[in-house]
Amino acid sequence: MARQAQGGTTPAMNMIDRVCAGDILTRAADLFPDNVAMVDDGRTLTYREFEEQANRMAHSLLGLGLKAGEPVGLLARNCLELMVCYMACAKANLVFAPVNLGLKPHEIAYCLNDCGTRILIVEEALAEAGRALPDQCPDLEFLYSTGTSATSSGDRTWRPFRELIDNGSEHPIEVVVGDRDPVQLLYTSGTTANPKGVVTSHQAVTIAAMSNIIANQLPPEAAMLCQLPLFHCTAVNCLALPTYMMGGKLVLAKGFDARECARLIEEHEVYMLVFLPMMFTEILTDAEASQRDFSSVHRALYAMAPMAESKLQVIHDAFPNADVVLGSGQTEFTPATCLIRPEHQWSKAGSWGTATPMTRVAIMDDHGRLLPPGETGEIVYRGPQVMTEYLNQPEKTGEAFKYGWFHSGDIASIDEDGAIWFTDRKKDIIKTGGENVASLEVERCLIGHPKVAEAAVIGVPHERWGEAITASVILMPDEDAAEEELIEYCREHLAGFKVPKAIVVVEEFPRTGTGKIQKHMIRKGMEGHFSG
Amino acid sequence: MARQAQGGTTPAMNMIDRVCAGDILTRAADLFPDNVAMVDDGRTLTYREFEEQANRMAHSLLGLGLKAGEPVGLLARNCLELMVCYMACAKANLVFAPVNLGLKPHEIAYCLNDCGTRILIVEEALAEAGRALPDQCPDLEFLYSTGTSATSSGDRTWRPFRELIDNGSEHPIEVVVGDRDPVQLLYTSGTTANPKGVVTSHQAVTIAAMSNIIANQLPPEAAMLCQLPLFHCTAVNCLALPTYMMGGKLVLAKGFDARECARLIEEHEVYMLVFLPMMFTEILTDAEASQRDFSSVHRALYAMAPMAESKLQVIHDAFPNADVVLGSGQTEFTPATCLIRPEHQWSKAGSWGTATPMTRVAIMDDHGRLLPPGETGEIVYRGPQVMTEYLNQPEKTGEAFKYGWFHSGDIASIDEDGAIWFTDRKKDIIKTGGENVASLEVERCLIGHPKVAEAAVIGVPHERWGEAITASVILMPDEDAAEEELIEYCREHLAGFKVPKAIVVVEEFPRTGTGKIQKHMIRKGMEGHFSG
Repeated sequence: MARQAQGGTTPAMNMIDRVCAGDILTRAADLFPDNVAMVDDGRTLTYREFEEQANRMAHSLLGLGLKAGEPVGLLARNCLELMVCYMACAKANLVFAPVNLGLKPHEIAYCLNDCGTRILIVEEALAEAGRALPDQCPDLEFLYSTGTSATSSGDRTWRPFRELIDNGSEHPIEVVVGDRDPVQLLYTSGTTANPKGVVTSHQAVTIAAMSNIIANQLPPEAAMLCQLPLFHCTAVNCLALPTYMMGGKLVLAKGFDARECARLIEEHEVYMLVFLPMMFTEILTDAEASQRDFSSVHRALYAMAPMAESKLQVIHDAFPNADVVLGSGQTEFTPATCLIRPEHQWSKAGSWGTATPMTRVAIMDDHGRLLPPGETGEIVYRGPQVMTEYLNQPEKTGEAFKYGWFHSGDIASIDEDGAIWFTDRKKDIIKTGGENVASLEVERCLIGHPKVAEAAVIGVPHERWGEAITASVILMPDEDAAEEELIEYCREHLAGFKVPKAIVVVEEFPRTGTGKIQKHMIRKGMEGHFSG
Repeated sequence: MARQAQGGTTPAMNMIDRVCAGDILTRAADLFPDNVAMVDDGRTLTYREFEEQANRMAHSLLGLGLKAGEPVGLLARNCLELMVCYMACAKANLVFAPVNLGLKPHEIAYCLNDCGTRILIVEEALAEAGRALPDQCPDLEFLYSTGTSATSSGDRTWRPFRELIDNGSEHPIEVVVGDRDPVQLLYTSGTTANPKGVVTSHQAVTIAAMSNIIANQLPPEAAMLCQLPLFHCTAVNCLALPTYMMGGKLVLAKGFDARECARLIEEHEVYMLVFLPMMFTEILTDAEASQRDFSSVHRALYAMAPMAESKLQVIHDAFPNADVVLGSGQTEFTPATCLIRPEHQWSKAGSWGTATPMTRVAIMDDHGRLLPPGETGEIVYRGPQVMTEYLNQPEKTGEAFKYGWFHSGDIASIDEDGAIWFTDRKKDIIKTGGENVASLEVERCLIGHPKVAEAAVIGVPHERWGEAITASVILMPDEDAAEEELIEYCREHLAGFKVPKAIVVVEEFPRTGTGKIQKHMIRKGMEGHFSG
């Protein structure tokens, strides 16, 4: 029997047997045409409308001359247009490339230039941030804003987004899409200053969507709250695509506001949500938000870090019908990779849970050897949800895939029940408020300050942020500097989420015999810094 | 962004990102090593043992010199060895090719010769049937029997199956497997006399397994009853692989026996089962079987044909915790393609339900045009669960994939809710007891009888068989023949399931103006033949 090429050997066969993320929407529109697919403030989109708009926009994008595999840049908070664009890209074999709004303007420009997008779509409310970009991004040819009419800035014209929909043919678009063709490009912070573009395929996001549905036992037509930003993998891959596959309703919020999110849960009878630990705290301690009816919630996921049992109990009491479980993952390996199974929600509450249905998890030593249960090493993954590559970074891609496994950079052991117990991070990365921040980048910024001689940046446990970026600094001889002065300096030079929450001036760092800073010692000394 | 080759561009990358049905078992063995994966009479296999045996057998098969894509022929009823072989093939990039035990010996030989298998594994109880095959199948080199010691017949030696496991290395096997490489070859009856080999890929069976889990809301570690034969797609793709993906228990039975199946449901607290309608009847009318505890059953699927509401009510009463829903599919499009959703189990009980999560269903006219809801035409499908091809039949493959859709051969309309209402069959196929039978083949047999001038074979609704094969015959002038004589003649020449349940001698057939037999008129006249 001949071995077959991927996803159809002819265009007609490709339409039959391919895996294309755009087909998720098409199938939902067949079965649930009048279901509301998304709610965005007062606006809604049914699956019939969603499918039609995505088809029209796909035709328009190809009509601009964009070629298979080209990225479509976006600057937007959660809104209908963002996900119409996702599905239009998927159907047209283009790549959805939203920018992380937490980045500094020069970093946003870096991302757009790195992928060389020729098109940028900006949410009207962010028009000011958008206006500066064409001058910094010479590849940009096509500019759109979600505003209702064309606007000009300098010699550039921003066309209304609506044109992309209104001017496109209503006919279903049929272009060849390979299973492994890229569909999304999300930038993630690394250990160097520049974000890395993570390229993910139709195959990866489709398998991840199914895997998330299975792991969360998601029923048809359920509502999901989506207050996490859709330029992150968790929102787009764990919430949006699974919701569409089941004909459910994605309830959009532009960021987290305790009262608004609580209201949306009650109004839309939300079935599943993903919160950072501090979001639960804010909702449950707010006099108004905490009074809402949360009985519809059956799956309450939390991300980032285990929670204390006492805190879990409070959440269980407030969400009486929900499994409350930790989910983990990363942009490079479409989440969730690990999830606490319901039967482990108390007994393994301190763990990362077990591998999701299509993910293989193992522990590896520095020499590529897999380690038995109980031994500590790096978490490595296998599964079709893995990224294709870091864009334009073959060397970093090669490192990530060393020894035939994807390297997570997290250190852990696995117990006899398959539960993963995180102990440390291999690279010097801080996970704060859902973002990855490289200590090195913050340290480089601090030593740029004329008064700072040396800096050591660590993550310190923090109820709201998971980890709070915290710096120890040694000043230049005879200098004096207030914490606020140094923080202000960081604020000028770093994206907001990278700015230290605290900076402590010290005389000396704990060091090894060879002079290397012992960050674990600093971390230990700062452990209680943000508590009480 | 470069477009990517399928499933890994290097062997190491293939191990990371591929879709391989064998990895389903590996992941289950990681998470649920001590769970029982299968029960076969008194014998059990845990996931740890299953994984180890499949690895060992994979090494042994490759050690024989079998090459990627080669089939492994099997002649066996449901047993542990059969599914160890499936997973060994999947891991070694070989093709699981079990033979339909309902076929006549010459048809079995035809299948083995068609795929050119060099290896045949026979269940010891079927040794006699197996012994005749090497003489008819010149490609056969390697012969194994599940018996415990080697046996000889003529100059051929049958090695014990156990050797394939005991002699193989215990190390995990790592060979490159492409997503679209074939993993199973199942023969299905067509409109011509010879069965057609349906080639199905790793991608298709893996997506189908996930889709079945989602559609049936299958929880982890559930038990499934598997009394349908594993040489059919329903058992292997709707029951076995989904069970393994969830770390559940596959409860094997060698065919349907009402008392034995009822006992197994109670003993193993079976969560899901797939029955033909007559199986429910037999269990619920048997004094002993009907007294068993069926409260563990949450999903009771029935196959083949809708059931009357009165009968459904009886099943609901006996299975008080179960959704009772019809599932449809066919070997060429890994089932289930359609399933009645729980909310439709009464309102749409006469339909085939709606498309499963990864299947697109549409209705097409004879000119390749898709038809709107309410209009009648051929059911066509799209989705990655589709077969790769009919083996050695490029022309039939091309017909099946005409106009960029897979053609089911079933005639139906789709209502506004997406439910599919079957009305007729495009090709002259009878679906009886889970098997497809071509009327033409039975007609050819009948006119081979010296007394028969013409024959028209149809399917007539039948409680046990779904459709009962029924023949109208016109005898040669001045001849006389009893029904039993003609049935006996068919029994000699056809596989058992193809033999008519009734043969009626008539003077003339209803015909069109051009003389074509109007089978729908014959069918109408025979409608009540088997009722009351």
